[in-house]
Amino acid sequence: MKTAIYPGSFDPVTNGHLDIIKRAAESFDKLIVAVLYNNKKKPLFNVEERVSLLKEVTKDLPNVSIDSFSGLLVDYTKENDIKIIVKGLRAISDFEAEFQMALVNKKLCPDTETFFMTTKAEYAYLSSSVVKEVHSFGGNIREFVPQCVAEALKHKHTEVS
Amino acid sequence: MKTAIYPGSFDPVTNGHLDIIKRAAESFDKLIVAVLYNNKKKPLFNVEERVSLLKEVTKDLPNVSIDSFSGLLVDYTKENDIKIIVKGLRAISDFEAEFQMALVNKKLCPDTETFFMTTKAEYAYLSSSVVKEVHSFGGNIREFVPQCVAEALKHKHTEVS
Amino acid sequence: MKTAIYPGSFDPVTNGHLDIIKRAAESFDKLIVAVLYNNKKKPLFNVEERVSLLKEVTKDLPNVSIDSFSGLLVDYTKENDIKIIVKGLRAISDFEAEFQMALVNKKLCPDTETFFMTTKAEYAYLSSSVVKEVHSFGGNIREFVPQCVAEALKHKHTEVS
Amino acid sequence: MKTAIYPGSFDPVTNGHLDIIKRAAESFDKLIVAVLYNNKKKPLFNVEERVSLLKEVTKDLPNVSIDSFSGLLVDYTKENDIKIIVKGLRAISDFEAEFQMALVNKKLCPDTETFFMTTKAEYAYLSSSVVKEVHSFGGNIREFVPQCVAEALKHKHTEVS
Amino acid sequence: MKTAIYPGSFDPVTNGHLDIIKRAAESFDKLIVAVLYNNKKKPLFNVEERVSLLKEVTKDLPNVSIDSFSGLLVDYTKENDIKIIVKGLRAISDFEAEFQMALVNKKLCPDTETFFMTTKAEYAYLSSSVVKEVHSFGGNIREFVPQCVAEALKHKHTEVS
Amino acid sequence: MKTAIYPGSFDPVTNGHLDIIKRAAESFDKLIVAVLYNNKKKPLFNVEERVSLLKEVTKDLPNVSIDSFSGLLVDYTKENDIKIIVKGLRAISDFEAEFQMALVNKKLCPDTETFFMTTKAEYAYLSSSVVKEVHSFGGNIREFVPQCVAEALKHKHTEVS
Repeated sequence: MKTAIYPGSFDPVTNGHLDIIKRAAESFDKLIVAVLYNNKKKPLFNVEERVSLLKEVTKDLPNVSIDSFSGLLVDYTKENDIKIIVKGLRAISDFEAEFQMALVNKKLCPDTETFFMTTKAEYAYLSSSVVKEVHSFGGNIREFVPQCVAEALKHKHTEVS
Repeated sequence: MKTAIYPGSFDPVTNGHLDIIKRAAESFDKLIVAVLYNNKKKPLFNVEERVSLLKEVTKDLPNVSIDSFSGLLVDYTKENDIKIIVKGLRAISDFEAEFQMALVNKKLCPDTETFFMTTKAEYAYLSSSVVKEVHSFGGNIREFVPQCVAEALKHKHTEVS
Repeated sequence: MKTAIYPGSFDPVTNGHLDIIKRAAESFDKLIVAVLYNNKKKPLFNVEERVSLLKEVTKDLPNVSIDSFSGLLVDYTKENDIKIIVKGLRAISDFEAEFQMALVNKKLCPDTETFFMTTKAEYAYLSSSVVKEVHSFGGNIREFVPQCVAEALKHKHTEVS
Repeated sequence: MKTAIYPGSFDPVTNGHLDIIKRAAESFDKLIVAVLYNNKKKPLFNVEERVSLLKEVTKDLPNVSIDSFSGLLVDYTKENDIKIIVKGLRAISDFEAEFQMALVNKKLCPDTETFFMTTKAEYAYLSSSVVKEVHSFGGNIREFVPQCVAEALKHKHTEVS
Repeated sequence: MKTAIYPGSFDPVTNGHLDIIKRAAESFDKLIVAVLYNNKKKPLFNVEERVSLLKEVTKDLPNVSIDSFSGLLVDYTKENDIKIIVKGLRAISDFEAEFQMALVNKKLCPDTETFFMTTKAEYAYLSSSVVKEVHSFGGNIREFVPQCVAEALKHKHTEVS
Repeated sequence: MKTAIYPGSFDPVTNGHLDIIKRAAESFDKLIVAVLYNNKKKPLFNVEERVSLLKEVTKDLPNVSIDSFSGLLVDYTKENDIKIIVKGLRAISDFEAEFQMALVNKKLCPDTETFFMTTKAEYAYLSSSVVKEVHSFGGNIREFVPQCVAEALKHKHTEVS
């Protein structure tokens, strides 16, 4: 059985992420979506909220589970005996950093493989940062994120202001 | 069971290709390495020679098989019920063309996924064209290709001249 | 009155080109779509056919006209007193060559400006070459080109074979 | 009448910006140069100073006016019924971020178009950040900015130290 | 006699840097490795520590000397009558910023040349940031840095926690 | 004494090449400009003409000599005991191919180094192909090439037609 991990910050999960999750879930027997948290960074949603939103949007995908981790991804994959890492690539903006990270992870853990999927062309422009920036100025983000994330963003905004 | 296809010209197979084959064979249940032939192009090795060299260098990989096809990759994947395409990406030189091809294939056959693997850093410079060019000028290509390919190149060279 | 020119090979015009034409026609008072022909290259459609297909697909755009030229674009723009060149840019594949051409044209004709428009994300993968290659292998190109171009391709194919 | 907007931080305006302003002003009937201010960022020049320097350097361009805005660019363009956004592109460093922003703006406001102009080759290296960094170490920035900006930088420096 | 300078932050020196140092030292008569310090940034190692580690790892290279500077590189090169700047380029991640900096330096000091060397493919993924991040999470950095740097990192880590 | 080689097709030498030659000649004790000829390609100028034009435009540079070679560059450098290869890099268009070639040459001949110089911003758009294309359509190439090359192009053109 081939288990893959799709790591990320997911602050919050976008339609672009969800597209990758659905397609990766078709290609591997089991997919773990893993929220990376970093105590030094200030996310908009805390790790529990991010995990909860991911659980909500993947509830109909039986072979997908949600988890979280901090530290090195390769430490998480070793502990959980995962050999396959899945990442989404948007046209160009992610390529360099992702490629470097894949080579570092390969060096740290030679029997782990990183597989890149192309983000659907329709989501080429989409990132969590874009969603947060557009939303912070009152822009419409309904086409960018699942319904429950749009609502969570609205609540978060009310909290903050 | 997840079957993946690794398509290419393999004219001839290099150590970079072989590295991708080995790693992809670990990640999927079955891997088909498929030689694309195009009657309009003049390869150095004909399709039978390319298939034969690939069989030789993968003979110890039980879940790898070799095949060939012409025409559209998505026609081959549909006929053989393959949902997963694997491609290797060298640092930058392949990215643009491969990305475009993945988007086209996705459009032509929406339930097929392309997964990109990073070529090992040591092979970042390596391509079949480089091998053929260096060899044509008498350069040493032993670090670039498997032993049997080096020999086939030597024979080919003698034939030609 | 600001007149812009959108030059290209258009062999044949795709939905991506048509999208640029419609959007550029909104932004300038008049748009000339100009088919570049080069006697050394063998196009699939000759210049008259390409002009004719462009006329057909732009017939509802009153401020768009179709023309053809060979030689240097800047000679055509000087003769016709056009100061604005419009080009479409797909994510990455066109950027380098187009940027170089824009700088050369600026050098040859300093009062001409090149404006780049981003190709709609949905057409990021699309080019005349992709259309011709997919069609030559019997692939479905209905989502890639206007109806009349699909028919012209079918006829062309029958002619050739 | 076609009105275009050239948005940016202009902290401060450089010769590269001024080159784009002059050329865009030739291509459209009216050009609004709009200073984006963001209360979370600490600029070197405040928004009034930036507007004032832009007014000074464009005083001989009759169809150019200066304004400022915060929030989403598309909100500003909608309110002012502007359909054309102009951006300058230096060789490579701006391409990715600008392209993403253009696609996001297109999504948020489908009838607005972004047009990219190539920065003159001579200014390929130039940015407000470069100007500020070189100036902060006492380097000569006379070839990088208009005279009045060089003076404003000198005053600013004296203020700070 | 041709003297070259290899400037950088070296926080800390990696095997990738050391590879460039050794190769540049072969190509020029004298090589000065110059640590740039910036009082506004918080490095992991202070400038004395960075200089000291560089001295340790280059002690067997007779034509290499270590120095430090703040401010503009071209001020340092002018004062020390150095005409040649050497930089290492990893596949893609460094290219844009380095290219811009080379053009700026050329503008500020026209008789100084920047020469780029390709980082060895094996070190394509390597940077001081990667080393620090991997080490901060307890990852193994022995293949990334010289022995004495690995030890210094261990001490630094103990200090901090 | 450090001898460097600047290899290329130089069909014909442009002002961009000449700029690199002058600057490289300042940085190394001796510079050999080496014309690569390839019997399979059809150049506009034959190897003797290209060598002759290079000799003409470098006649005032005492430490520059002109030579030609076919085959692998590393065979030429080994035979002539040259350890330093110099290449010019225009903004982006050359980067990928040049980087790959540098890594291949490093592999074939580990003690040879490739140094990249940035082409002057003013020549970022310039290549021998651009010169030939513009000239073939009667465009003005006086700012692109030295005087003697412009004349040679005129003669060549007359010959051909």
